[in-house]
Amino acid sequence: MQQAGETLSQDPLCSDFDRATAVTPRGDDESVFDAVLPDGWRVGAGINGGLLSALVARALSKELGSGSGHRDPFALTAYFLSACHPGPVTVRTGSVRSGRHLSTGAARLMQSGKDGTEVERLRVLASYGDLGALTDEVLTTAAPPRMPDPDDCLPADHAPPAFLERAPFIRQMDLRLDPSTVGWAFGQPSGVGALRGWLRMPDGRQPDPLLLIFAADCLPPTAFELGIFGWMPTVELTVHVRARPSGGWLRVSHTTRNFAGGFFEEDAEVWDESGRLVAQSRQLARAPERRHAFPAHV
Amino acid sequence: MQQAGETLSQDPLCSDFDRATAVTPRGDDESVFDAVLPDGWRVGAGINGGLLSALVARALSKELGSGSGHRDPFALTAYFLSACHPGPVTVRTGSVRSGRHLSTGAARLMQSGKDGTEVERLRVLASYGDLGALTDEVLTTAAPPRMPDPDDCLPADHAPPAFLERAPFIRQMDLRLDPSTVGWAFGQPSGVGALRGWLRMPDGRQPDPLLLIFAADCLPPTAFELGIFGWMPTVELTVHVRARPSGGWLRVSHTTRNFAGGFFEEDAEVWDESGRLVAQSRQLARAPERRHAFPAHV
Repeated sequence: MQQAGETLSQDPLCSDFDRATAVTPRGDDESVFDAVLPDGWRVGAGINGGLLSALVARALSKELGSGSGHRDPFALTAYFLSACHPGPVTVRTGSVRSGRHLSTGAARLMQSGKDGTEVERLRVLASYGDLGALTDEVLTTAAPPRMPDPDDCLPADHAPPAFLERAPFIRQMDLRLDPSTVGWAFGQPSGVGALRGWLRMPDGRQPDPLLLIFAADCLPPTAFELGIFGWMPTVELTVHVRARPSGGWLRVSHTTRNFAGGFFEEDAEVWDESGRLVAQSRQLARAPERRHAFPAHV
Repeated sequence: MQQAGETLSQDPLCSDFDRATAVTPRGDDESVFDAVLPDGWRVGAGINGGLLSALVARALSKELGSGSGHRDPFALTAYFLSACHPGPVTVRTGSVRSGRHLSTGAARLMQSGKDGTEVERLRVLASYGDLGALTDEVLTTAAPPRMPDPDDCLPADHAPPAFLERAPFIRQMDLRLDPSTVGWAFGQPSGVGALRGWLRMPDGRQPDPLLLIFAADCLPPTAFELGIFGWMPTVELTVHVRARPSGGWLRVSHTTRNFAGGFFEEDAEVWDESGRLVAQSRQLARAPERRHAFPAHV
């Protein structure tokens, strides 16, 4: 792996992210894709949901983009059905409708269960278009969050060893957390449902729409800052990609307004280095049934 | 039709909303439902997207709830494929996964096209559970927006006749808009992407999860307050229902943070009379290709 900022990957398959989301169409049915999920993108027993969503997004881009030129995800929704483990998976895609502006497709991410039968992990709906064809008009856009410079933020891979062992995917990112949102890591959660940080890939892989989908689900849960630790499965995640990002750092902000009744939403916003709000997402997640004390059993 | 607040409908089919979202399972296949969309819920040439989503939600509640007891929509996502006209429609539902907490299903809303073939209007994914089984814990929740009392707000059905003719569904609601967000109606849009108001049904029909889904897409587009008028089709709408609402007025708030590149997101929040944030939604919509001057051609 290269050091942060050393060089930019020109060949997509030089990057860890692209290798982890690579999909191969089957010779006999090009709407079906095979892939292998590396262990290094695991959080607990399952692969990170942002990576799974990006992998399905790549397959749908091939399925929908070939005829229409609609290769960029504009909106992608994933319903998470069961935890997806490292190893082989299959993505079954289909076109739902092809329009002038957008093409819509559906996909299922499947994995062999313990008894060898196919189990569905993720069901996806998504609309694709051409981000390059968008107008330059920006009528209103949210301002990026103020944060200390990356060098004055807290590298996520400085987390305690027990945390990194449980969530090795943290090491796949160069993620610097705003110190004002990491009280949870020191036993002093702020009580405010907000986390934010700077993100880039350690091997120099530059942002694109697929990386934005990953970025929307790559931070620790905002629930940590509410003093809640444990397994918090995503029910549903929708990402809107709003512009092609510039190169360099991404600013990622997660907020929760409504932690109630055993569920909470997480809104993510992703800004590029030019200050453009390039992606927005929301997910519904379930609060842990069994809550743990940090950090031993996060 | 009863007058506002006169009595509460006890029989669901006494209410206009319930009649407009009624679905009948087919005798030979109970996963397929027939329905008829009344002209009165039209906006332009198509039926309001919130009503369509509520109708599909009702069909999925029957499909998923019968065995599992998971009758309440927790998360519902609709991808809008083509405008749905008044008249007969068919909802084809299917179960995707049945879990302990949630059951997930998929649905397609179909309508006969001009040549008699079935055309898909809406593709839906949704997870259902039992809102009655949720804990009472509220760790953090957004505060309801401050608004003048309903009697000091602007009834939406006082809109200009040209507007009501184009959007007759406005008359289905007792919707009172916060005067500070209706500058657009007087040729003075605020430039802020926000609209809010009080909502109840004129026939006394009380809020429930299906009405919350409708409420998430019942206000005029926030783009009006940015001075943008014209046809703004929804690409994708996701609603999270977070609690069973109390009776009485709902407060509905729509905001847009990112109107850019010909698309904009709309976040809706719905509070019940007790001050609980009972639903949250986000949609991605397309800005009008041809922009009109208000009010003649909205």
